[in-house]
Amino acid sequence: MSEPTSNLQPASRTPLLDLVNSPEDLKKLPRDQLPQLAAELREEIVRVCSVGGLHLASSLGATDLIVALHYVLNSPRDRILFDVGHQAYAHKMLTGRRSLMHTVKKEGGLSGFTKVSESEHDAITVGHASTSLANALGMALARDALGQDYKVAALIGDGSLTGGMALAALNTIGDTQRRMLIVLNDNEMSISENVGAINKFMRGLQVQKWFQEGEEAGKKAVQAVSKPLADFMSRAKSSTRHFFDPASVNPFAAMGVRYVGPVDGHNMQELVWLIERLVDLDGPTILHVVTKKGKGLSYAEADPIKWHGPGQFDPATGTLSLQAGTPSSAYSWSSAFGDAVTELARQDPRTFVITPAMREGSGLVKYSQVHPHRYLDVGIAEDVAVTTAAGLALQGMRPIVAIYSTFLQRAYDQVLHDVAIENLNVTFAIDRGGIVGADGATHNGVFDLSFLRSIPNVGIGLPRDAAELRGMLKAAQENPGPFAIRYPRGNTERVPEGTWPTLLWGTWERVQGGDDVVILAGGKALEYALKATRDLSGVGVVNARFVKPLDEKMLREVAARARALVTVEDNTVVGGFGSAVLEALSGMGLRTPVRVLGIPDEFQDHATVESVHARAGIDAPAIRTVLAELGVDVPLGV
Amino acid sequence: MSEPTSNLQPASRTPLLDLVNSPEDLKKLPRDQLPQLAAELREEIVRVCSVGGLHLASSLGATDLIVALHYVLNSPRDRILFDVGHQAYAHKMLTGRRSLMHTVKKEGGLSGFTKVSESEHDAITVGHASTSLANALGMALARDALGQDYKVAALIGDGSLTGGMALAALNTIGDTQRRMLIVLNDNEMSISENVGAINKFMRGLQVQKWFQEGEEAGKKAVQAVSKPLADFMSRAKSSTRHFFDPASVNPFAAMGVRYVGPVDGHNMQELVWLIERLVDLDGPTILHVVTKKGKGLSYAEADPIKWHGPGQFDPATGTLSLQAGTPSSAYSWSSAFGDAVTELARQDPRTFVITPAMREGSGLVKYSQVHPHRYLDVGIAEDVAVTTAAGLALQGMRPIVAIYSTFLQRAYDQVLHDVAIENLNVTFAIDRGGIVGADGATHNGVFDLSFLRSIPNVGIGLPRDAAELRGMLKAAQENPGPFAIRYPRGNTERVPEGTWPTLLWGTWERVQGGDDVVILAGGKALEYALKATRDLSGVGVVNARFVKPLDEKMLREVAARARALVTVEDNTVVGGFGSAVLEALSGMGLRTPVRVLGIPDEFQDHATVESVHARAGIDAPAIRTVLAELGVDVPLGV
Repeated sequence: MSEPTSNLQPASRTPLLDLVNSPEDLKKLPRDQLPQLAAELREEIVRVCSVGGLHLASSLGATDLIVALHYVLNSPRDRILFDVGHQAYAHKMLTGRRSLMHTVKKEGGLSGFTKVSESEHDAITVGHASTSLANALGMALARDALGQDYKVAALIGDGSLTGGMALAALNTIGDTQRRMLIVLNDNEMSISENVGAINKFMRGLQVQKWFQEGEEAGKKAVQAVSKPLADFMSRAKSSTRHFFDPASVNPFAAMGVRYVGPVDGHNMQELVWLIERLVDLDGPTILHVVTKKGKGLSYAEADPIKWHGPGQFDPATGTLSLQAGTPSSAYSWSSAFGDAVTELARQDPRTFVITPAMREGSGLVKYSQVHPHRYLDVGIAEDVAVTTAAGLALQGMRPIVAIYSTFLQRAYDQVLHDVAIENLNVTFAIDRGGIVGADGATHNGVFDLSFLRSIPNVGIGLPRDAAELRGMLKAAQENPGPFAIRYPRGNTERVPEGTWPTLLWGTWERVQGGDDVVILAGGKALEYALKATRDLSGVGVVNARFVKPLDEKMLREVAARARALVTVEDNTVVGGFGSAVLEALSGMGLRTPVRVLGIPDEFQDHATVESVHARAGIDAPAIRTVLAELGVDVPLGV
Repeated sequence: MSEPTSNLQPASRTPLLDLVNSPEDLKKLPRDQLPQLAAELREEIVRVCSVGGLHLASSLGATDLIVALHYVLNSPRDRILFDVGHQAYAHKMLTGRRSLMHTVKKEGGLSGFTKVSESEHDAITVGHASTSLANALGMALARDALGQDYKVAALIGDGSLTGGMALAALNTIGDTQRRMLIVLNDNEMSISENVGAINKFMRGLQVQKWFQEGEEAGKKAVQAVSKPLADFMSRAKSSTRHFFDPASVNPFAAMGVRYVGPVDGHNMQELVWLIERLVDLDGPTILHVVTKKGKGLSYAEADPIKWHGPGQFDPATGTLSLQAGTPSSAYSWSSAFGDAVTELARQDPRTFVITPAMREGSGLVKYSQVHPHRYLDVGIAEDVAVTTAAGLALQGMRPIVAIYSTFLQRAYDQVLHDVAIENLNVTFAIDRGGIVGADGATHNGVFDLSFLRSIPNVGIGLPRDAAELRGMLKAAQENPGPFAIRYPRGNTERVPEGTWPTLLWGTWERVQGGDDVVILAGGKALEYALKATRDLSGVGVVNARFVKPLDEKMLREVAARARALVTVEDNTVVGGFGSAVLEALSGMGLRTPVRVLGIPDEFQDHATVESVHARAGIDAPAIRTVLAELGVDVPLGV
């Protein structure tokens, strides 16, 4: 550990936190000690996160809020929901998991998000944004239907609130008027810089610093609660609200959700005082809280995008280390896409790239600077990303939606209804296809081959390297219909600028001879297949780079000759590439046996990518085992 | 035809409309004749819709707006987008399709919605709600990127606006400030009565009748445009806006979208005058227009839910006829579900039913009256419906999401991320599974078996009748995880109250002996299989009522003995039930040939259900043909 030590420090750096192993312990503290507890939690979070790969900045920003919520509410009876769940490290530590924090995102360890099966204090299992409000509504409805009386509080960031699902949930929350507290954690950014009109509106609120309560319910509430709260709210209102400013309008109150705020999300006394009063009010209440991402850590406050999920770093200095196993020359698939599309857009004025709040993750920082007028970040709204692309394509552009596989799940209908029916030229650049590792079950991109394959007109390609990615991008621009290019998390080889290989639509490639047993695999799985068969004769390997359309000609050829086929994919075995091969062979009337290797039909917990692939039985040793079972002469130990 | 005729009438009932075959013709009319033209269009719409099965009330309500839009804009150069597209009959008639209106929703005829491949005047292909704004944004971006200057106008109903996707699109529209006109057609209802806070808010607007323009853009706009408009807006504002009323807040303006309204959607002069001015303003503008669903037809105005999509009726009297082929004793699958769930909720306090704006269509009118406290309509927000159910299930309820198959496509990620990962007890009652017929490609429910099957933990059942539906509902309540019960559009047999058969989880049923060739089919396809094989010996039929889990024991038995298997499904052949069987047999190492019958991998245009099934090759004659090909002795003509 590189932490500085000093003789002036007490024996423990976290004397208060050492006393708190549960929400009950927390409640024993006098409230003037809460800021100190939060500071210790933050220090611990920095230490935990310094190993790299964790969500640092947002966790620091939410710590005061989390302490205040647990101080007032009684978890697990009361339900505290964390939207996305990546900001909940303080919550994990306060609910008995402090000693396990070094295991976060590691195999067998704690999840990086909240997870129902991990703790009774985790109200929802989550990882995707904007789901907390509908969940909270369901919980409040269940409580009322069963005649119970616990409290429900949801903590949602301003980025998550731009997701349509959160807005639509708010619509029904305002309508049904169930008792719940929504804490809007406004840190002025999602992962990228925040975009969108709602965000601008919230900036407006912050400048104005006014309070607003919604219609009748709000008025009654103010009368019903303690005199100090009523005084507090009316004072804030009369002194600071600008009725005549056209920006002085509040959509939350308009929707019938009582609105209080904005308040300082790091003023613990005020937070506790407000939450105590607001959580018992009838109907829904939004407490708008302004926090600083990276709170308490100067370098993280200064550059919260960099410190959203940093690599390994020295907590004292904020110096990022080079990760072991990540040479500085590493070239990610995301960068390969970003470079290719930046170049493509120079050649083709019809190129337009859309991202749902993933500029950094999708390798689009450079693109967004070089081609700002053909770039759009729609915020966390995957459905909007896809349908906006449809509109662009209808009017002659060649849009590319850059999206993680797991998030494309949120736009299945838009791909089908808005893009595929009219066979529009929209390209999906699907990053993080396959197992993603540390982010676990909520983020694995192992369903896309299945759900996309079921949609007519949608082509699917699995590039084996950056050159093939470029070939597919070019083919996608030329082919009239939609095309999904899917690549994994991780690295590939850099290619020179100007590399634009020609790829014949729907063709596979024999990359290793051998007709006895033939392995069909694309993308990451092809890597494994080649590794598994380097020293084997009689085993053929086909780069099955098109999952749709299949290369039926080559499939027929190899199936007619081979004793058995093996398909390998980094995708569920249900309805994926292997099924495509089974369907095609069945249609051809060929009865060649096929061994389908892929991710089993169950959710895969977090672990390294390699570990999950080994467990799933798709890595090189697993392929060798299968080949041996098929009678191939496989030498032991490679 | 039952229309009354009279000697006092002119030779044509539609003398003005007879002169208008294109938007160019329309522009030749003096504007004081537009109300008359609209009246004639409405009369024609009533006549067209009186054959039954068409969208009457919303089409009548939107006619004045459509005339005004086409009068001002220049389609097809300018783009006019219709959200959902079911209100666009007047648009079809004004763009050269009047003589084909009798073919709407009929095989080979016009679509019931707008469809790009049908006319250059149809800007988008649509059927699902809330997509028009993202499409319009994409078009405006394309226009600006390519340096063009056409106009973009979207017509969206208040129901569609509660969809999260529309709200999220508005967020980016406010952010990007592209020139476009959004006409908010506020008729106070979607298909069911409208729900939600946004709706309440709009009611508030109507009462207040005020005008609001958003921030800087709005101010500049008012200065920039003609003096009369500026006068008009400021007059309306100063005289009617209630600044001190807490309800007097406007979320549209807050999002940076200039807001004008509400205005009378049937005052043609005012509409034309406003659209002429607003459509040229920089940035996005919402024109909030209040219309009457069923406008001009007294009985439809009085009961627009009944007249949303009525059966055959007499235009003069508004008397609904009994449809040929629909005996009064017909009992729809929707009713079967509604009756079952109403009864179930009496026995089980944990039952809770959620619908996304489909109370009538899903057979829930009675349920909503008998169990109002365990019923929720979330508006057109399928994602919210599913995740609210997750919240309910997490807190001990047994929620049921009643949803059409085609709309469940919009909640794929919520089923996966919010329900399936924690294996929550949520039941999906999927109506309109399979081909739906007249509504065509946008509405066919032929993807659900494929996309649901790819999600771990989700069971899928295909009841053959109302009794089995009830058995599945009961099994779904008892089985811990999520379960999707999928049934078709159409009718089934009524069963007595109290019918609750016990169904062993994951079991199939031999319904017809015969081991030589065995047909595996569930739901609607089972009906066809039984019809096809009544007179055949040696052909077995299995009620494959569970698509997941498969009855592997029975599958192994029949596959081991049979010469061939035939699977039949009312679902795409890609990744569906047939693929499940292929996957299972491959896993078992069995090589029994399988013929997979299902909907081909292409979008199916509107036609009768029977016609599409025949074309797809899954009806009884098609099955007999396949059996003959497999060597079964099939007598000609049945």
